[in-house]
Amino acid sequence: MSQYTHLSSPTNFLHSLKGIPHINDSNLEALFDYEDWWKAEGQAISNDVDASGTPWLKMYNKFGKRIDEIGYPPAYWNMLRQGYNRGIIWRWQEQQSLLPFFQMGYITSFYDTGLLCPYVVSISSAVPIAKYAIGEEQQKMLSRLVQNEGAWQGATWFTEIKGGSDLGNNTDTIATKTEDGWQLTGEKYFCSNIGADVAIVSARLEGSPAGFKGLQLFLVPRIRKDGSLNYLVRRIKNKIGTRSVPTGEVSFENTEAFLVDENMSGIFLIMESLNISRVANAIGSIALAQRAISEAYSFAVEREAFGGKIAEKPLLKWEFAKRMAELNEGAQLAWKSAELLERVWQQKPPYSDDYHYYRFITHMAKYWCAELAVKHAKWAMEVFGGMGVLEEFGIERLLREAMILPIWEGTPHRQILDGWEVMARYSLHERLFDDLEAIQPSSNTSIMHNKIKNALNLPEDEQKAAAGKIFRQLARITAKALAAKMEEPAMS
Amino acid sequence: MSQYTHLSSPTNFLHSLKGIPHINDSNLEALFDYEDWWKAEGQAISNDVDASGTPWLKMYNKFGKRIDEIGYPPAYWNMLRQGYNRGIIWRWQEQQSLLPFFQMGYITSFYDTGLLCPYVVSISSAVPIAKYAIGEEQQKMLSRLVQNEGAWQGATWFTEIKGGSDLGNNTDTIATKTEDGWQLTGEKYFCSNIGADVAIVSARLEGSPAGFKGLQLFLVPRIRKDGSLNYLVRRIKNKIGTRSVPTGEVSFENTEAFLVDENMSGIFLIMESLNISRVANAIGSIALAQRAISEAYSFAVEREAFGGKIAEKPLLKWEFAKRMAELNEGAQLAWKSAELLERVWQQKPPYSDDYHYYRFITHMAKYWCAELAVKHAKWAMEVFGGMGVLEEFGIERLLREAMILPIWEGTPHRQILDGWEVMARYSLHERLFDDLEAIQPSSNTSIMHNKIKNALNLPEDEQKAAAGKIFRQLARITAKALAAKMEEPAMS
Amino acid sequence: MSQYTHLSSPTNFLHSLKGIPHINDSNLEALFDYEDWWKAEGQAISNDVDASGTPWLKMYNKFGKRIDEIGYPPAYWNMLRQGYNRGIIWRWQEQQSLLPFFQMGYITSFYDTGLLCPYVVSISSAVPIAKYAIGEEQQKMLSRLVQNEGAWQGATWFTEIKGGSDLGNNTDTIATKTEDGWQLTGEKYFCSNIGADVAIVSARLEGSPAGFKGLQLFLVPRIRKDGSLNYLVRRIKNKIGTRSVPTGEVSFENTEAFLVDENMSGIFLIMESLNISRVANAIGSIALAQRAISEAYSFAVEREAFGGKIAEKPLLKWEFAKRMAELNEGAQLAWKSAELLERVWQQKPPYSDDYHYYRFITHMAKYWCAELAVKHAKWAMEVFGGMGVLEEFGIERLLREAMILPIWEGTPHRQILDGWEVMARYSLHERLFDDLEAIQPSSNTSIMHNKIKNALNLPEDEQKAAAGKIFRQLARITAKALAAKMEEPAMS
Amino acid sequence: MSQYTHLSSPTNFLHSLKGIPHINDSNLEALFDYEDWWKAEGQAISNDVDASGTPWLKMYNKFGKRIDEIGYPPAYWNMLRQGYNRGIIWRWQEQQSLLPFFQMGYITSFYDTGLLCPYVVSISSAVPIAKYAIGEEQQKMLSRLVQNEGAWQGATWFTEIKGGSDLGNNTDTIATKTEDGWQLTGEKYFCSNIGADVAIVSARLEGSPAGFKGLQLFLVPRIRKDGSLNYLVRRIKNKIGTRSVPTGEVSFENTEAFLVDENMSGIFLIMESLNISRVANAIGSIALAQRAISEAYSFAVEREAFGGKIAEKPLLKWEFAKRMAELNEGAQLAWKSAELLERVWQQKPPYSDDYHYYRFITHMAKYWCAELAVKHAKWAMEVFGGMGVLEEFGIERLLREAMILPIWEGTPHRQILDGWEVMARYSLHERLFDDLEAIQPSSNTSIMHNKIKNALNLPEDEQKAAAGKIFRQLARITAKALAAKMEEPAMS
Repeated sequence: MSQYTHLSSPTNFLHSLKGIPHINDSNLEALFDYEDWWKAEGQAISNDVDASGTPWLKMYNKFGKRIDEIGYPPAYWNMLRQGYNRGIIWRWQEQQSLLPFFQMGYITSFYDTGLLCPYVVSISSAVPIAKYAIGEEQQKMLSRLVQNEGAWQGATWFTEIKGGSDLGNNTDTIATKTEDGWQLTGEKYFCSNIGADVAIVSARLEGSPAGFKGLQLFLVPRIRKDGSLNYLVRRIKNKIGTRSVPTGEVSFENTEAFLVDENMSGIFLIMESLNISRVANAIGSIALAQRAISEAYSFAVEREAFGGKIAEKPLLKWEFAKRMAELNEGAQLAWKSAELLERVWQQKPPYSDDYHYYRFITHMAKYWCAELAVKHAKWAMEVFGGMGVLEEFGIERLLREAMILPIWEGTPHRQILDGWEVMARYSLHERLFDDLEAIQPSSNTSIMHNKIKNALNLPEDEQKAAAGKIFRQLARITAKALAAKMEEPAMS
Repeated sequence: MSQYTHLSSPTNFLHSLKGIPHINDSNLEALFDYEDWWKAEGQAISNDVDASGTPWLKMYNKFGKRIDEIGYPPAYWNMLRQGYNRGIIWRWQEQQSLLPFFQMGYITSFYDTGLLCPYVVSISSAVPIAKYAIGEEQQKMLSRLVQNEGAWQGATWFTEIKGGSDLGNNTDTIATKTEDGWQLTGEKYFCSNIGADVAIVSARLEGSPAGFKGLQLFLVPRIRKDGSLNYLVRRIKNKIGTRSVPTGEVSFENTEAFLVDENMSGIFLIMESLNISRVANAIGSIALAQRAISEAYSFAVEREAFGGKIAEKPLLKWEFAKRMAELNEGAQLAWKSAELLERVWQQKPPYSDDYHYYRFITHMAKYWCAELAVKHAKWAMEVFGGMGVLEEFGIERLLREAMILPIWEGTPHRQILDGWEVMARYSLHERLFDDLEAIQPSSNTSIMHNKIKNALNLPEDEQKAAAGKIFRQLARITAKALAAKMEEPAMS
Repeated sequence: MSQYTHLSSPTNFLHSLKGIPHINDSNLEALFDYEDWWKAEGQAISNDVDASGTPWLKMYNKFGKRIDEIGYPPAYWNMLRQGYNRGIIWRWQEQQSLLPFFQMGYITSFYDTGLLCPYVVSISSAVPIAKYAIGEEQQKMLSRLVQNEGAWQGATWFTEIKGGSDLGNNTDTIATKTEDGWQLTGEKYFCSNIGADVAIVSARLEGSPAGFKGLQLFLVPRIRKDGSLNYLVRRIKNKIGTRSVPTGEVSFENTEAFLVDENMSGIFLIMESLNISRVANAIGSIALAQRAISEAYSFAVEREAFGGKIAEKPLLKWEFAKRMAELNEGAQLAWKSAELLERVWQQKPPYSDDYHYYRFITHMAKYWCAELAVKHAKWAMEVFGGMGVLEEFGIERLLREAMILPIWEGTPHRQILDGWEVMARYSLHERLFDDLEAIQPSSNTSIMHNKIKNALNLPEDEQKAAAGKIFRQLARITAKALAAKMEEPAMS
Repeated sequence: MSQYTHLSSPTNFLHSLKGIPHINDSNLEALFDYEDWWKAEGQAISNDVDASGTPWLKMYNKFGKRIDEIGYPPAYWNMLRQGYNRGIIWRWQEQQSLLPFFQMGYITSFYDTGLLCPYVVSISSAVPIAKYAIGEEQQKMLSRLVQNEGAWQGATWFTEIKGGSDLGNNTDTIATKTEDGWQLTGEKYFCSNIGADVAIVSARLEGSPAGFKGLQLFLVPRIRKDGSLNYLVRRIKNKIGTRSVPTGEVSFENTEAFLVDENMSGIFLIMESLNISRVANAIGSIALAQRAISEAYSFAVEREAFGGKIAEKPLLKWEFAKRMAELNEGAQLAWKSAELLERVWQQKPPYSDDYHYYRFITHMAKYWCAELAVKHAKWAMEVFGGMGVLEEFGIERLLREAMILPIWEGTPHRQILDGWEVMARYSLHERLFDDLEAIQPSSNTSIMHNKIKNALNLPEDEQKAAAGKIFRQLARITAKALAAKMEEPAMS
């Protein structure tokens, strides 16, 4: 089955994809090295981290001093540092390009989707800092985030107990101006990468009214200038998967904080950060989907039933072919959003149409690729049959890891509504349909085009109700069209 | 939202379904009582059993005697006995009807899908015994299975290490004739309800060739006549869900066994047993889907975002409406298979067309309803957002429980192929389309009819490859049509 | 082996002890009933609670409300309520005697030493409240603690992060007077029975200097008058044993508190409470020691080696005899402290010599009996051989439970120093030696008497250094002498 | 406190001990390197292995092939190989001395007592093979055991379900002669280092009667000549400690086995192997005791109470001094047995008096040093107070590790009886008392001498009953005397 040659290697698969942004030679070598490390050492560590369950929080040392250290299997730290040391962050600054991040992130997610998260929140905090922050302290922290050895970890903490979507109403952390800076008081309920050295944190300026406008973004280092803890970790959360990133709750009390940019409304910075994460989420989703299909395939080519390898049975053959196509389509959509981001990541408000188009495609990609990740993880379990639900074979882990993907950084519900809103406000579906028509005129595309035009004339509530079905179809059609384009050269 | 009135109660939901087989008054009262027990006590026990992980196997007592006891939280046994004592098995014999089983099974699965399994394998072993077994020992065991208090548990152990589908080739357990009966030697790799008092076990008669023909079905009690263990439990398997049923591996060595029916080929009995389980699986899947939507709904009517309850947001409202429709459609399909079984469960080979029609619909129901269970469990997690992936809120458990449903008793791949084979051999799609047309003529139905007719003319391998997509569409259309029928009276 | 007749039953053993305070008939029947419950149901629950590990803390409900509930296996609550409902607390008030508490506590500890703790801290908080508290709220809480069904649980929270012994210097919780009462701010680091409905809590009055004098004792209910949580539980601690009592950390912030007695120095009330706990600790230790020897014995009478039951081997026979004697001696010492407490528990400062004598014997009993508990638990493991260190046989649990006994309410170091201080200040060794001589004149006793007289003339630091060895010998001699007395009637 | 200078370093402590066998310079350097590795990496790995609980047994791969692999955290294997690669085994052959083994074993046990076990069973199997085995296969296996990199692990499996002491009656594994060798059938219930590459296994020659005489010792490699598993692992046992050595159950079925020495009675070889382990046990016990006192000390010099460091409080100072003395005494006794073994390990039956004297001292050392390990581990927990019973501070682990020491390779009961038997048969107490008198004449010694002489005149059952108390005193006196000798030079 020659078409599945690259299935078991994330680097090869990526490299073989047609039409996605170029991987330069030095990065490619780094990717192969990274993949080799995963095969030789990383996979066993990752399995152990997952099996170990939630890392424990060492709150106090034996002399009663609060320390808030995160207790992972010792090999975890080796695994985590691989990405940093190999340049998942610093290549961004060196090459002034986010593509190396997404390429290395793809490898990471193939082997451990949860581990992608620390890197994502590191890059998603580093980029806004680099773009907007001016103070000396802020610059120092940035330089720590992008250094080669011993790089700091970043984090993005926006979600409080009332929920993550409605930031304007659900942010109760208060920032107070002090003589020489800012202090935060409040709590964050979902803090990914809880052990980060510095986090970007949303807070409401003291005295400002509810809503988006009072929000600002702050840098919050883990350790205060005087060496003490700058905030307390209340607990680490028991998640069903993605245990390679510790997620916790944090409480701030007179916490030292550094304003990112006083001239910007914080909500812009938060959204810029979130949207980078969403691209990463889409790409990580495809990596997990590849892994799931790959695991199923490596099983099916050996497993026998009814007098033959099950991979050769007609229905399963058809299943593999269909899923390979979906994987390719999803990959094109995910990398499209990365490619668009690559062009606009340095833009500041007021944003160009290119920027909004990037947001539009990103909502679609984040939504659709996460669906694929879950779908294929479920199916891989089915190919393994009863063994699929046993802890010992590790296939079920793919589903546990996958389930964060549709949820993190906004559920399908959120992506659909936000994607729809970009489309409605900036008419960016027109640009999309122009692009799709250019690839290959199709009746499906024009039917969809009309559907959307009609839907946009509905009253707002009806539009939103209609958005669910339409956006799903649009995502699927877009992915298919992008993949079709990529296959053309191969045909000629 | 009046249409969701019955959503939080499995009994009310079942009772409100239009067109499904009648629940008689005494059974209805029993269902309400059973549901009340779950609310008051059962749920907390079930949560604890899940959180406790895999039950441990107490292999030896302190004096070195092998005992193979299953270590559950003590409250588990109370939970397990509720179903038996309340008649999930004995009502079948008393009323000569399987409907009470499916009704109580629905309640069970709503609260603990894993716990449905012990009851399913008990009924799936009791029915073939009642129909076919003649020996005195066999009759004694049957009477233990259907008694009121202290009923024995049954089990159905067919799967060996090489896999469960290809029974003809993958059954290496050997049955040897002895002076006064039979002895088994071999292993079973997936033994649901490992603590059962008696299991029906497939084995190959010593000396018979590979393939279906040499298979026979045996009754294997846990304890030998001399009071010792009749087989050894090798281990209990770590599953990601359904921990309310212990699944293990068993090894037989000179194990006392009682032939069910020497005049029948064993494969018929095995398939009869499996098909009863598949109906139960479909019904249990719908119960889990109802639970998932119900949990999401009870959250959404309280959770606020953007100035209102999220259940009132247009897109989420549309989601709930769509999912309620799918739930109703799936319920109609599942109960259709139960209704058909109710008419034929006493038939023996050679089977009538009614019997084959029941099989056809059952493959469809088993397949499709399990898909719905997974789909809605995933979605319930998304409605809970980040809390959906946290162990503490229990929503993620629904997905872990659900994942056994597409796998157990045959994956989608198996249901599709077997369903297709019934259709192809007995042309039972014709009867189905007649039925569907009678409900409501529709262009969808006739398009599907043609697709199938065309597909059945393809070479066999192409048929099988085509079966995947067509059978899925057929299942969906059938479920929709059945539900449409049920809504007619309400419209008039 | 007739001397071991009562070994397997805590009630029978207690009842058979010579010379300990009378168990009245109604209490005796209650004890047998309670023991029967343990055999029939309690043991399995207790094993499961231990195997379940640390109970989890449910901090938030799904709507983001802080709830701080303690997640035990549901059967735990049944086990816990047995003691309360059967009168482990209310019999004290009804009979104006602490003996029923110690008798029921003995049964409890035999089956689950950790479960003794909730009862101990309930009685240790109820007694000082009954003796000293006058306010209306305080009286209401007391009546809740001693009611029959649904009794409140009490707790005694004195230990902060810096350690438990030096209360004067290590209490940083501050009590602030408000318009209508008191408020606490601060933390407690070791809070046994973290789920208590009301706790007695030590705090320093705002503005008072370091040291004992500024301490006061407060009643702190779990729920504020307005229905909200009165304090937060930071976490539940992972202990190696005694998992039947949840131990946690608590943080107070404007916590409603009710002063126990403004006219008393708080340190007296704290010490009264602690000393009751120490008597209970001594008695619970003996129960655990009995259990350990009993388990070893029931194994040894069945286990064979070298052609006979190991219980019949001469060296093991000697071991059992020696340990039975030690058990008896320890029991006499423990119950001596209970008997002395029974006479003085209603006394208030200034205390009588009887009171100080009770304290003296209690330090000795708390220290020595805990040593016996650990010693015999270790030995029971050895009798089981390799099975002793396996989790599945439960013998190792006895050692894990036992290890809290020398530590809780003051380590040997603390008991020795405090016991020595009572002796030195009030010359109560003279009274002890008079008592021992009265039982049976012995050269051991007079040698010890002289040793102590000499030691009391040493400089203080040398006294304390000498105290370790001497106090140990004194405890052993006292226990032996008390047991000797009891055996006299049997000899005559 | 200058006397505690070396307390925190096992190498320094060992090196500072007076009178124990010389550590040559190259070994000393290796010890310091090894200790450095533990501080830098090993401790964190060891903590993680303990926290991970019982390693899991991967019975089957995903294709249904039995593989019986042991699932440890991946870092475990690095930790395990340190000892082998650094020469804990190969230095024995290179230097023809067991002392390097005991020295490296001391370091190992200081940091992870459980990890000592794999090395002990490797050396205890290698030595008898080297002394007795002649076949080519046997020589090949030996060379694998002593190679530098990639050394094989050994194991010693003698204990079956009926218990470990009475080998003559409790060995039901049968060895059958085949055309080209031997085959074993049966089970072993306690198999330390279950993943060993080759084990020495006791078995009864087919047809031979019960009792010692029919026993022989066999080499059993994990993998058969044809590459398949040579036996099955039934399960890995859940132990409360020593999780760094996997302990399991094994079942043999037509297992390839290689006879060690057909000219010897197997029981001699088994006892030689056991006695080497007992010396190692004594030495490992002292290392754990040192660790416990060291942990307590490092805490006490920082912890404050009552206005000073608790290490400076008179009673605790006295405690430390007393325990340091006991540690020194125990160390002298343990190393005495090592020194005696060093002289005789190459002897074969009939054994010299030196050999029996080594056995006599070894029974004493194994017994007494294990008592010290438990005693000091318990006390270290008490010094930590409440934190001593919390899992997070790791002090409790010392007790869990310690508890195997009095049990493994024979409980106190066994050591006392066997020690007594050597004494009674060969009058070796006379030689001991000569030795002790030579060190320092003492009334204690002569009283003990008389006690023993008298006891040896009692009837056998009375002797055995008396042995418990006397042997304990003898061990203590011997240890004290040996330590006294060592202190002489220091005094002059």
